[in-house]
Amino acid sequence: MTTDYLIAQIHKKKSFLCIGLDVDLNKIPKHLLETDDPIFAFNKAIIDATHHLCVAYKPNTAFYEAYGLKGWQALEKTIHYLNTNHPEIYTIADAKRGDIGNTSTMYAKAFFEDLGFDSVTVAPYMGKDSVEPFLAFENKHTILLALTSNAGAFDFQTKSVDGVELYKQVLETSKSWKNSENLMYVVGATKAEYLADIRQIIPDSFLLVPGVGAQGGNLQEVCKYGMNDSVGLLINSSRGIIYASQQKDFAQAAANKAAELQQQMQAVLSK
Amino acid sequence: MTTDYLIAQIHKKKSFLCIGLDVDLNKIPKHLLETDDPIFAFNKAIIDATHHLCVAYKPNTAFYEAYGLKGWQALEKTIHYLNTNHPEIYTIADAKRGDIGNTSTMYAKAFFEDLGFDSVTVAPYMGKDSVEPFLAFENKHTILLALTSNAGAFDFQTKSVDGVELYKQVLETSKSWKNSENLMYVVGATKAEYLADIRQIIPDSFLLVPGVGAQGGNLQEVCKYGMNDSVGLLINSSRGIIYASQQKDFAQAAANKAAELQQQMQAVLSK
Repeated sequence: MTTDYLIAQIHKKKSFLCIGLDVDLNKIPKHLLETDDPIFAFNKAIIDATHHLCVAYKPNTAFYEAYGLKGWQALEKTIHYLNTNHPEIYTIADAKRGDIGNTSTMYAKAFFEDLGFDSVTVAPYMGKDSVEPFLAFENKHTILLALTSNAGAFDFQTKSVDGVELYKQVLETSKSWKNSENLMYVVGATKAEYLADIRQIIPDSFLLVPGVGAQGGNLQEVCKYGMNDSVGLLINSSRGIIYASQQKDFAQAAANKAAELQQQMQAVLSK
Repeated sequence: MTTDYLIAQIHKKKSFLCIGLDVDLNKIPKHLLETDDPIFAFNKAIIDATHHLCVAYKPNTAFYEAYGLKGWQALEKTIHYLNTNHPEIYTIADAKRGDIGNTSTMYAKAFFEDLGFDSVTVAPYMGKDSVEPFLAFENKHTILLALTSNAGAFDFQTKSVDGVELYKQVLETSKSWKNSENLMYVVGATKAEYLADIRQIIPDSFLLVPGVGAQGGNLQEVCKYGMNDSVGLLINSSRGIIYASQQKDFAQAAANKAAELQQQMQAVLSK
């Protein structure tokens, strides 16, 4: 998917919501456990109930790998379901990959070609030649971890490297990589005040912002500091939406939570 | 597997060789492509021919994920084959994972419990709470990326953070994490001269050293600077061994290459 198409979808749906599909069998409604494929059954119900309220879905691959073959199968079914029934929806494989060049190419093929995701999250620690293989794919995005939403972000990401915080070095350095126009960045919502500085370095790029909701981030703050002329934001909520209820009404409860966020986003967009 | 058991195996086999099982269907002998599961067939032949020469195998998970469900199945069969037939062999899932706490726990369960690997490689960028969930597993090791063997290592890892290179900050900081005795570190062989400094910070830890062979690292140099009283080294070779021949004699050719390295290691150990 092109960035322009994504922006058009945001304006059409009046939403820049991304829903995280982090399926944990201990948290989904009990009655789904009796189905053939509880993970896919859960995802399908969530997608059917919320697809008009969001522009993106983001399965975190860890949750699928944790269930081995069955989990991987459920991930394949989920992305296939999305690409078949909702090709207008942007898809993110939250995989946080990154390896030496030839291995990154394998990962890029797996997520972009075999699974058919629009984008994949990638870790920056191994540098340019671990990320560029992802950037080589046309109309696919590579979403680089910059400033994450967890406590450990302060261990290294905010440390000063030659006078500049490491995450800013990552942003600055990545701009020189080949096909850097295919980059987006992960910036945690729990650190909304950092977004003003970040926009100085990457004014035009899209930011994937996790941490709204369960992790305590504030939507208005994120928009205030992070939004650009093309919106430039995908705001993710996972647990706050998909586990709104653990009863039979879970899909409707998820839709209600997603609608709350969508309405807040519509208000921001109409300003 | 405990560290003591691994050290005992190293002395018993007079080898600290790790063989990387990075299976690429474009590189394996053509006749294997006609079998039901070419990836597993290849791995089984390599393992059968080399298990007495090495103490560890390291499948890079990217190569398996690239083949989707079939790849994942081949990975499961490979680790199962190793754990059943060669429980004395140390196994490393080269996955380079790292995510927020609850997600890292999912990954740790997937690799340690479901698949039954002895260890997994983890990226440090997200800090303490992304790594500690892995460290909580008893008799399992978490192998933290410190200084990798690719060109991109110089983009961030060797940059000065408050006067100390980032990879040294990673080493130093990680020592304070809970259950840090379960840590090992990835240090690329292409930078053997860095090992003396590294040993100042982590004198006792095991190092997983990729980059010997195809990537140009030198075994003697690595041993000179990196070995400690408990050996403290696992030296990995992937392509240099497993693709020594692409003909029907591939397994024997791999064994010959592995034997060359094992003999060099034996010579070092007997000094």
